[in-house]
Amino acid sequence: MICEIICVGTELLTGKTINTNASYIAKKMMMLGINMYHQTVVGDNTERLTEAVKRAVDRSDLVITCGGLGSTYDDMTKETVCKTLGKDFVLNKDVEKELHEYFKRQNRVMPESNIKQTYMPSDATPIPNENGTACGIIIPLEDNKQLIMVPGPPKEMKPMIDGTVVPMLMKKSGFVILGRSLNTLGLGESALAEKIRDLSISSQNPTVATYVKDMQVDIRITAKAENEEKATALLDEYEEKVRKLVPQEYIFGVDYDNIEERLVEVLKEKGLKIASAESCTGGFISKRITDISGASSVFECGVCSYGCNIKEKLLGVDTISEYGAVSKETAAEMAQGVLALSGADIAVSTTGNAGPDVMEGKAVGLVYIGVATKNKTETFEYSLALGRGNQRNNVRTNASTLALYNAYKAAVNL
Amino acid sequence: MICEIICVGTELLTGKTINTNASYIAKKMMMLGINMYHQTVVGDNTERLTEAVKRAVDRSDLVITCGGLGSTYDDMTKETVCKTLGKDFVLNKDVEKELHEYFKRQNRVMPESNIKQTYMPSDATPIPNENGTACGIIIPLEDNKQLIMVPGPPKEMKPMIDGTVVPMLMKKSGFVILGRSLNTLGLGESALAEKIRDLSISSQNPTVATYVKDMQVDIRITAKAENEEKATALLDEYEEKVRKLVPQEYIFGVDYDNIEERLVEVLKEKGLKIASAESCTGGFISKRITDISGASSVFECGVCSYGCNIKEKLLGVDTISEYGAVSKETAAEMAQGVLALSGADIAVSTTGNAGPDVMEGKAVGLVYIGVATKNKTETFEYSLALGRGNQRNNVRTNASTLALYNAYKAAVNL
Repeated sequence: MICEIICVGTELLTGKTINTNASYIAKKMMMLGINMYHQTVVGDNTERLTEAVKRAVDRSDLVITCGGLGSTYDDMTKETVCKTLGKDFVLNKDVEKELHEYFKRQNRVMPESNIKQTYMPSDATPIPNENGTACGIIIPLEDNKQLIMVPGPPKEMKPMIDGTVVPMLMKKSGFVILGRSLNTLGLGESALAEKIRDLSISSQNPTVATYVKDMQVDIRITAKAENEEKATALLDEYEEKVRKLVPQEYIFGVDYDNIEERLVEVLKEKGLKIASAESCTGGFISKRITDISGASSVFECGVCSYGCNIKEKLLGVDTISEYGAVSKETAAEMAQGVLALSGADIAVSTTGNAGPDVMEGKAVGLVYIGVATKNKTETFEYSLALGRGNQRNNVRTNASTLALYNAYKAAVNL
Repeated sequence: MICEIICVGTELLTGKTINTNASYIAKKMMMLGINMYHQTVVGDNTERLTEAVKRAVDRSDLVITCGGLGSTYDDMTKETVCKTLGKDFVLNKDVEKELHEYFKRQNRVMPESNIKQTYMPSDATPIPNENGTACGIIIPLEDNKQLIMVPGPPKEMKPMIDGTVVPMLMKKSGFVILGRSLNTLGLGESALAEKIRDLSISSQNPTVATYVKDMQVDIRITAKAENEEKATALLDEYEEKVRKLVPQEYIFGVDYDNIEERLVEVLKEKGLKIASAESCTGGFISKRITDISGASSVFECGVCSYGCNIKEKLLGVDTISEYGAVSKETAAEMAQGVLALSGADIAVSTTGNAGPDVMEGKAVGLVYIGVATKNKTETFEYSLALGRGNQRNNVRTNASTLALYNAYKAAVNL
């Protein structure tokens, strides 16, 4: 099957909006094993949309349009597409009823302009929208082809794709596709890819591939089978194969978005509390821990000791004059200091040079991380400047990731 | 003039890469007053690229292709485009020399595969690439049309667009376009748009429009004139007009990316130091301040007092049992506490409910911000939950923005 996406919206052509919808939908089609050869963007313009739809329906089996389903005069995707396809355009009573109820729930009366959102071809199937007033529409075409229209706002589009379009396509295809990600940290992408290379190359189903986000490298296993049970069995089998190739210490979880999610979970499971003392990361670690809802049960105290004075006064660091603020000694004392101050079980600290300039003779990207528990303090040294130009954002992001990772490892062993 | 973008890359069709290049280039064209009606994505495929190029050259005056200029066998944009346009394809001696020097600077010998990157039509103009081996190419076409090829990696593409393509198009057009953004906070976009509506509607040159990023609303003035002096005069004139319509208190700067950049600058100018005490924002404020390089001269201390215990012990808050942790009293005491602890001139604090659940009977999104100086403590109350679903990220982002904004206002008045 060949799928094609047409995104409709002048805001895409002026660059005001980045086209994240196309990649979101493309990923889902990829996962379903559906090929995609074209993506097109046109503005809210009848002539150009007509031309794009004609071409797409001609060369592809599944056409997904995205955007232009609103209630205002410049939303013309539905009218234009139906006219182009030679379809009738009638009021759908069920959708009308739904829409009235949608407004009623908000104690509002439906404005007259919204009635246009209830029109569609009589052989079309509406896709409900829980986050807005524009329903999606599935239109059957000749030769077993289909055209699907979804609204442009991601929070309306995504639930329709995930909740209706993907399950429908999966059912139509007669097989299910399941994925699983082994989350790793500590090994670079190329080193990791090298370890799983033979498996990756030799295996068509499941597929095994690496995906990088900042320092985290996920090993994604995707299996296709006639039912969920068989797909799960394939995933289990290949997860075991991958685990034989990658040292266990680098794998921190399965299907987590990031290390902070996993860290907070481990701390909760073990009834442990964590505290942070940050210099070069400037609060990024505590921000990331508290991004996770429910973090309050494992995190009470973070100190951002950006100045030497505060490192000394609040955390009791007393070797700065001897080793400098960017040193493993300072990292260790910061972690110990905030451990005592907070009464937490684990404390993590960072001190380093995020750039842009060399500082105390320490290179941009040099970062020390400390992890302290009641009985033990460890320190880690990293060089995190990866390229040219301003490395500040990279260094800080990667330093906070590695700090969270080392704290996670300490938590696991506690 | 009508421009069209063709992005080439299988990674876009699989959704692995979000197409940020198209919006980057589109914005520049918009700024130059060049219309865009189509954007297309095709894979690294000769047949489909040929078809896309033919159609684009036919219907547009300026075609920009992006991607597929690498040295490997699957990079075929240049060969395909030149063949489609009926152009010859010869080695460019200057580019070859440049490329050898590029490798020499890195103490490497140029691999043979890179020689293909020196080929282009004999009437083409190369665009130098300081961040990679693929030069860009400008090809003149009949009817005063042009086709421009740039590489796909953003760090290579952007300098070519900004350094060569935009100046060339500006020169060709015979006018210059300059922009200026008045940065505002504290008024919503619709309220702000309402204030400048008549000016916005009546003015064609300069154009006046609003752009939102999180809570910050920029009023962007874009002027077109025959030279820089005249364009600047237009900007000055319209900046004055805008300032008459928008209360001065909401405008925090001109051409700043964000409020933390402006805050750090004001603190530096005035020789002031700031400290933070964060609860619901969990370190986001200190993270944002220290995002700015050079922040160490104005920021030494942040406390993330996520637990009540730490608020009391470290910051001396003593009214939690009476008013609850989410209260203006706690916000005030947190700010006063960290002011005393740090010895800073200004302290800013946050306490609130970021969600997902109601807490102490306080609604999701209720946030108190405190700003303390030696002689005065102010508190601010906000309701920051804006829609349905998990509001945690919104609430925390907006709370940190408003905290930085209120701290900025205090710094200005100090």
